[in-house]
Amino acid sequence: MSGKGVSVTASQRQRSSSLRNIRIEIEYDGANYCGWQVQNRPRPTVHGPQKRAIQEAIEKALQKILQEKIRLIGSGRTDAGVHALGQTANFKTSSSIPVGKLQRALNGLLPDDISIIKANEVSMDFHSRFDARSKVYRYTILNRNFRSAFLKGKVYFVPYPLDIRLMQRQARSLLGRHDFVSFCASRSSVRSTVRTVKRIAIRKDKEGLVTIDIEADGFLYNMVRNIAGTLIEMGRGKLSGRGVKEIFTAKDRRLAGPAAPAHGLCLLKVIY
Amino acid sequence: MSGKGVSVTASQRQRSSSLRNIRIEIEYDGANYCGWQVQNRPRPTVHGPQKRAIQEAIEKALQKILQEKIRLIGSGRTDAGVHALGQTANFKTSSSIPVGKLQRALNGLLPDDISIIKANEVSMDFHSRFDARSKVYRYTILNRNFRSAFLKGKVYFVPYPLDIRLMQRQARSLLGRHDFVSFCASRSSVRSTVRTVKRIAIRKDKEGLVTIDIEADGFLYNMVRNIAGTLIEMGRGKLSGRGVKEIFTAKDRRLAGPAAPAHGLCLLKVIY
Repeated sequence: MSGKGVSVTASQRQRSSSLRNIRIEIEYDGANYCGWQVQNRPRPTVHGPQKRAIQEAIEKALQKILQEKIRLIGSGRTDAGVHALGQTANFKTSSSIPVGKLQRALNGLLPDDISIIKANEVSMDFHSRFDARSKVYRYTILNRNFRSAFLKGKVYFVPYPLDIRLMQRQARSLLGRHDFVSFCASRSSVRSTVRTVKRIAIRKDKEGLVTIDIEADGFLYNMVRNIAGTLIEMGRGKLSGRGVKEIFTAKDRRLAGPAAPAHGLCLLKVIY
Repeated sequence: MSGKGVSVTASQRQRSSSLRNIRIEIEYDGANYCGWQVQNRPRPTVHGPQKRAIQEAIEKALQKILQEKIRLIGSGRTDAGVHALGQTANFKTSSSIPVGKLQRALNGLLPDDISIIKANEVSMDFHSRFDARSKVYRYTILNRNFRSAFLKGKVYFVPYPLDIRLMQRQARSLLGRHDFVSFCASRSSVRSTVRTVKRIAIRKDKEGLVTIDIEADGFLYNMVRNIAGTLIEMGRGKLSGRGVKEIFTAKDRRLAGPAAPAHGLCLLKVIY
């Protein structure tokens, strides 16, 4: 808003009241992106030039459709290569375009590894990041002795046997409010590393697909991938028999397992 | 076999009796291939040079591992871009390599859009094409108003409404023994166009995925894609209300709908 004086004029009030807040839900295959947002951290770029950010791609498409500058607010970042089935974002616009038409126009402009699966108008105070009560991530492992040609790039292939019951037992210790510093990437610079895990479920189906679903009020940088990597190591009988409780107590990232690769991770949904 | 005379020597008998017949089951993402087999039909190549055949890729890997000329016999061809979850093939080898080791070696050499999901030794007279009793194909349609970023290249996206019940009703007329000439691509040159459809099932899930599963004793060139394309047109209320029975009676390819695209088609399994 660019008011010339301090006082708000009637016309400005009207303009302001005609602003709409649009919430969108997004599905994406993260393989070809540097993540939800352009990463500020300097990174070695062994794979050539920086890839595009998903947020950036959607903002550009929105601006083309709405013919105005749009700031798209995501519920949070997803890292390079991470997928989403239900990322949520919102933006404000003075356009009166119907949401159904906007969704179709967006899907028409966006590359086919990004899909707007829902668009609706919400109250002006809705904020996709601040209002998120929790998020659900899924880490998917293909645990059998041959890979899948169909699930390529969507699952982490682990050909050695995993003790799923042990993983389920250890996962229970992650539930509740804890300091997750041992499961947090060192380059993270958040104020508090305390988070609450509300639900964790590990399942294996007859095709060998193991899913680790984690719902928490918030996630630290690389937290799910570190948890998945740690549980996989435990399932293989590694980590010298250390358990999740010991890793919590030590508050030392080096005790946990390595981060599992990004392509097995998917943001399932954001709960408001 | 290169015998010097007419009579079979003891050593040749031994060599011959030490031949083994190996059956493999294969999963593949057909996107990057010209099909199971190199196509002999001359085709316009608007997309540049001919892509590799899946059979060829596996034969090459087998030859590298077994150090002998291998002829891989598939249960039948799949067309360019068509996927498989359970293609079956067999080959004969004089190697005594254990099948588990062979499977791992193959998966190690093959590109990651081809996976050998099973390998076992079978009796010498097993022939993957002649012994096939039936095959099951699945055609998958995503029927909702927004595409899926995750299922890209695996489903045919149909954004307009489909009358699934009408499609199910019409599909019932395909069951049994019929002349499928109206559902056969014109370039096909088979002796008989009579086939028996043993089962056909159309389902729609809550995500909008519509699957058309067809089991038959054999399939004509493009038969499943022509059936899927016809049922889709009917589901949209097109084809001027013509039904499957009329299309059968007319024995005219022009009365059926257009072939649905290859990337929605998958060979689920071969039944012996």
